[in-house]
Amino acid sequence: MPTSPLRFADGALELLDQTLLPGEERWLRCERPEQVADAIRRLAVRGAPAIGVACAYALALAGPDFEQAAALLGSTRPTAVNLRWAIDHGRGVFESGGSLLEWARQVERDQVEADRRMAEHATALLSPGSRIFTHCNSGALATAGLGTGGGAIEAAWRAGLVEHVWVGETRPLLQGARLTAWELGRAGVPFQVVTDSSAGALMARGLVDAVMVGADRIAANGDVANKIGTYTLAVLADRHGVPLHVVAPLSTVDPATPSGAAIPIEERDPSEVVAGLPALNYAFDVTPYELVTSIVTEAGALSPPFTEL
Amino acid sequence: MPTSPLRFADGALELLDQTLLPGEERWLRCERPEQVADAIRRLAVRGAPAIGVACAYALALAGPDFEQAAALLGSTRPTAVNLRWAIDHGRGVFESGGSLLEWARQVERDQVEADRRMAEHATALLSPGSRIFTHCNSGALATAGLGTGGGAIEAAWRAGLVEHVWVGETRPLLQGARLTAWELGRAGVPFQVVTDSSAGALMARGLVDAVMVGADRIAANGDVANKIGTYTLAVLADRHGVPLHVVAPLSTVDPATPSGAAIPIEERDPSEVVAGLPALNYAFDVTPYELVTSIVTEAGALSPPFTEL
Repeated sequence: MPTSPLRFADGALELLDQTLLPGEERWLRCERPEQVADAIRRLAVRGAPAIGVACAYALALAGPDFEQAAALLGSTRPTAVNLRWAIDHGRGVFESGGSLLEWARQVERDQVEADRRMAEHATALLSPGSRIFTHCNSGALATAGLGTGGGAIEAAWRAGLVEHVWVGETRPLLQGARLTAWELGRAGVPFQVVTDSSAGALMARGLVDAVMVGADRIAANGDVANKIGTYTLAVLADRHGVPLHVVAPLSTVDPATPSGAAIPIEERDPSEVVAGLPALNYAFDVTPYELVTSIVTEAGALSPPFTEL
Repeated sequence: MPTSPLRFADGALELLDQTLLPGEERWLRCERPEQVADAIRRLAVRGAPAIGVACAYALALAGPDFEQAAALLGSTRPTAVNLRWAIDHGRGVFESGGSLLEWARQVERDQVEADRRMAEHATALLSPGSRIFTHCNSGALATAGLGTGGGAIEAAWRAGLVEHVWVGETRPLLQGARLTAWELGRAGVPFQVVTDSSAGALMARGLVDAVMVGADRIAANGDVANKIGTYTLAVLADRHGVPLHVVAPLSTVDPATPSGAAIPIEERDPSEVVAGLPALNYAFDVTPYELVTSIVTEAGALSPPFTEL
């Protein structure tokens, strides 16, 4: 069973603190929305679908202070649209007098089911013996179920289709080397960690059959915002004729964002890159749709324009 | 004045231990060739021209045991051809009964002069206001003079042509964030460190006017081996119409290596990437000549084939 990064128990949302993995498995108990917002901001919980689910539970913890919690949670991270998706849907429940906790539990169950379907659809795109390059973490820790890109890789491996996984370490916070490697190791999937700048050399040697990643926001025209470095992988994959599969739930697709140029890109603290020196730390980049082979959702592989969902 | 990474004094070669920079400036005193070989292997001295000069002095320290020292030094690192260049030239001096120390001093002086000329030629390729992306370290620490790519950047900045330098941190050993940033900071050149996977996003935003790097070996057909990640920069630069200038002395050009496919690529210990996990650690990659805008040597910008020098 994959490790879910969150659980609701005894009136609180408990989050596995992903900043401490793989060294320590510590659960944070959040009884108030502010604690969840803080956990999202400092990446204790991360991954677009997972922060969507965490946000849903945080809204359930807010009680009558819905709008105050929504404003706080909505300000934590700008790029992943799942936060806004959860706030918009939660507001409908709140205003109609429904149970936000019941709704949050349903959001989680829906994510688990969406992950299962995404993995099925994505597995169908892979051939036996695939050597897959992945970036950042899009496994179970990034959602609430199997994962998106990472869930698809693990499912494809269980189906006998995956020979090897190349895990880009994903600087500066090493979500690949810390989180994806931890997940693949527990599952028994064969992998090697490489520096992010190794992708080109691996492709030039013919050692990569597909790139598979998640997404933080997909614009109406199919442009994909994902962890910084994804665009570089896309350009390399294009040069080498390697397919790039983006696996993401429909809640990550944002018809209201016309193109990648309109996606706000989070700029994080330079000290995450290097201490005491001038640095620039974009957390995401945008891959134009022309470089994307497939966008795989729970409804199958979809093509833009995404005008309504 | 740039900091030279080596000096010969009191019968020994002293090397600035680059594994400790920028935290500590410690000089290693090498009285025997084995100590220099060890320093080269563990990257206390690195950069193709610098290890060529260090090798020359190490051969001078060998006395009558020339061939034993040559075999040891030649086995330290496979990719940079400057090691072999120094051994081949040193053997001629040894066999003709010349002074290896005098010769080594001349190798160092020649490198200083070559660096000066490379910087002049490379500066002529840049326009005012240039924002330059560089990778790894090709400054003074990598040679014995101004540097190759890094020396050219600093010279162009002194000529008023450089607005900003993007320093790729250069995982796994961070020669960019540790060494290039240290050099640029001391010189007063405006720079920011970025993760290696940020290059694509910066180019997509139009923030890079040129890529300038050094080289470890240039094959007869113009293919360039340099620090892993250079190939990725080349592919990105090609997509964005950004010129890629490779700055390297003639001693880095190897007419005996027909193409990049024949360049041995050093694979270093996986623990340099991540401890306790499966990892792969290629130290270099190969950029095909078709992606290289200029190869700048002390003799000016040259075009392949490099059949004789």
